[in-house]
Amino acid sequence: MPLLVQKYGGTSVGDAERVRAVADHVARTRRDGYAVLVVVSAMGKTTDDLIRLANEVSVTQPPREYDMLVSSGERISMALLCMALAGLGVEAVSFTGSQAGIITDTDHTRAKILDVKGDRLRETLALGQVPVVAGFQGVSTDRDVTTLGRGGSDTTAVALAAVLGADACEIYTDVTGVFSADPRVVPDAHRLSKISFDEMLEIAATGGRILQLRSVEFARNHHVPLHVRSSFTWEPGTWVVEEDESMEQAMVTAVTHDASEAKVTVTGVADRPGIAARLFRALADRSVNVDMIVQNTSIHGTTDISFTVPKVDLAVSEEVCQALSDELGATSVVSDNEVARVSLIGAGMKSHPGVTATMFETLAADGINIDMISTSTIRISCIVATDKVEQAVRSLHAAFDLG
Amino acid sequence: MPLLVQKYGGTSVGDAERVRAVADHVARTRRDGYAVLVVVSAMGKTTDDLIRLANEVSVTQPPREYDMLVSSGERISMALLCMALAGLGVEAVSFTGSQAGIITDTDHTRAKILDVKGDRLRETLALGQVPVVAGFQGVSTDRDVTTLGRGGSDTTAVALAAVLGADACEIYTDVTGVFSADPRVVPDAHRLSKISFDEMLEIAATGGRILQLRSVEFARNHHVPLHVRSSFTWEPGTWVVEEDESMEQAMVTAVTHDASEAKVTVTGVADRPGIAARLFRALADRSVNVDMIVQNTSIHGTTDISFTVPKVDLAVSEEVCQALSDELGATSVVSDNEVARVSLIGAGMKSHPGVTATMFETLAADGINIDMISTSTIRISCIVATDKVEQAVRSLHAAFDLG
Repeated sequence: MPLLVQKYGGTSVGDAERVRAVADHVARTRRDGYAVLVVVSAMGKTTDDLIRLANEVSVTQPPREYDMLVSSGERISMALLCMALAGLGVEAVSFTGSQAGIITDTDHTRAKILDVKGDRLRETLALGQVPVVAGFQGVSTDRDVTTLGRGGSDTTAVALAAVLGADACEIYTDVTGVFSADPRVVPDAHRLSKISFDEMLEIAATGGRILQLRSVEFARNHHVPLHVRSSFTWEPGTWVVEEDESMEQAMVTAVTHDASEAKVTVTGVADRPGIAARLFRALADRSVNVDMIVQNTSIHGTTDISFTVPKVDLAVSEEVCQALSDELGATSVVSDNEVARVSLIGAGMKSHPGVTATMFETLAADGINIDMISTSTIRISCIVATDKVEQAVRSLHAAFDLG
Repeated sequence: MPLLVQKYGGTSVGDAERVRAVADHVARTRRDGYAVLVVVSAMGKTTDDLIRLANEVSVTQPPREYDMLVSSGERISMALLCMALAGLGVEAVSFTGSQAGIITDTDHTRAKILDVKGDRLRETLALGQVPVVAGFQGVSTDRDVTTLGRGGSDTTAVALAAVLGADACEIYTDVTGVFSADPRVVPDAHRLSKISFDEMLEIAATGGRILQLRSVEFARNHHVPLHVRSSFTWEPGTWVVEEDESMEQAMVTAVTHDASEAKVTVTGVADRPGIAARLFRALADRSVNVDMIVQNTSIHGTTDISFTVPKVDLAVSEEVCQALSDELGATSVVSDNEVARVSLIGAGMKSHPGVTATMFETLAADGINIDMISTSTIRISCIVATDKVEQAVRSLHAAFDLG
């Protein structure tokens, strides 16, 4: 019997009625001839409420206790879903991360999965029952409860699908799939029916918040087909699969944007080996998550280095750059909080050299200045002013006929 | 270093402010020279809220999933308390029932503790840290989460105190101790500073809802001194200890009352061996929890059997009696929902034979009719009309100079 792993996010199990709707769908999926394993997130805003409560209690929050706290929400949703399934005559058994055998390292609040034992899940499936597993959590090699960080439930689902050899991993959410652009910005954006893992990775990395980057990487590495779909309409959504050489590749698949980062430029630094290493090691030591980095070609023995960081990390980034300014021989450190990134993504880009030129022409026609450029084989990103980015998305979506 | 187990009930950790107040007290206790292990209940009405949610989701509630659901509340309160302690510079480590090694049978929703391993608790105490343990829960021999039933956190605390050889088990609650009568009924009721386990058992069994019967039995059997006190005033409360032969025993310690039961009388049943057994086996088979049983002396070969049951079990009890009526040769089955029990408790009663007479005289002087009588060595209980019971409590409290 084919096996589906179904993951339901917080809005999908937001209240008692939603939990019953999910149970109905699980029962329907079984009637359609599938074995089902379910992964659930905490209901609605449960986890946010718990974090607020913790902030009321103490500013000191040992990570081990933080994980104990925020992992309790999934226990509630999974037990309720099992009850709803039992009410429909479907035998279901809930499992915490620990009971499911999800073994992680000891890096609390952002633990990495080291191993998935899954013996009890296999036994439960063999009995024809539905295992309902708490997403987002595991048990560490020190026997403590750990959590996998934001979006960790997606990772739980993909990991279980990989270990149990599931035929697909369905990610149920409150949108109907992955779109060619953010529908709030581009009204005629359309749902993509099928994209490659590489495209999904680029979309996730550049602003499409629908799937956690890490879970997509995990799915790609373990060849787990993903199906992103809505638990409100139950319509088929977007399949994320391995690239199929035989299929004609769209030149451009999606336009994404992201206004969560700021830009820092260090000008006039000495152009010699070790300078960039010194700067980015210092940023890493302060846990700054640097994203795009652009270094211009050296002129007169000096160069400018620009990079983007999450807006929350801007202040510490400026501090690090200023402190290193003399050592780097920099003439200035300039930052800009009012920037955004617009990206074109498409597996077919590799074989269509004209994409970059069309992108730049389109932005130029709108009078939008490009501040930084960065490319990969299947992506082109431009940093532009924040107040221009939505126009840029609309124009590019139209220019590449994505509507 | 002496060890105290401190148990905090739901109102004691009802909100962020209360959690911080508890942390302050734990820190103060350590400064006073004690090692401390804490057992917590779920915050305020958390467990009731979870049960309501479950009822919204499904009428079918598999006991295993029910336990998974309702055990989540303690995880929240214990993690928050550890954070509050960390904020005060006190190292604290939370443990679920499973992590604490509380092994139970598989009787979900009312599991019995089979064993307490407690290795991690001993390690934590040896490091000078405060273990904070989830009350009310354990892990079954089938590796599933179990709960110990209402009031189970008291049992958790007493069991841990016994296993770890604690010097005392402090039960913190929202009242200041055990009283000579319910202060809402008797304004001059006074707090008892010291009572015996046997007295506490009778008080718990006859209406004093302050401690769960089971936890007192456990404390008595394992010689764990209990200290029932308030987490709002932090004043010393009531010690529950082994009877001390040297101390003068009060004739009457407390007057309790309870209006939660109803009375059933089966009249004119044949007075021959096996009749009572037949009746009470049938009631037990329907899970009716029979409390007092009184059978009158046989007159003309027949007798009347009266018993009390929780009001919620009255309907099924009547049904069982009616069904057995012919077999028992009964002439009628009569029930009364408007009854209550008033009890006198005192270890000194054993050696003061006049107590019973004084009790009956006191009730007679108030014109209160006695419906049923039942006694133990340290208790006398009378069933009276519900609307007379508070007057009975007040008169008895005065008659035995308990004010």
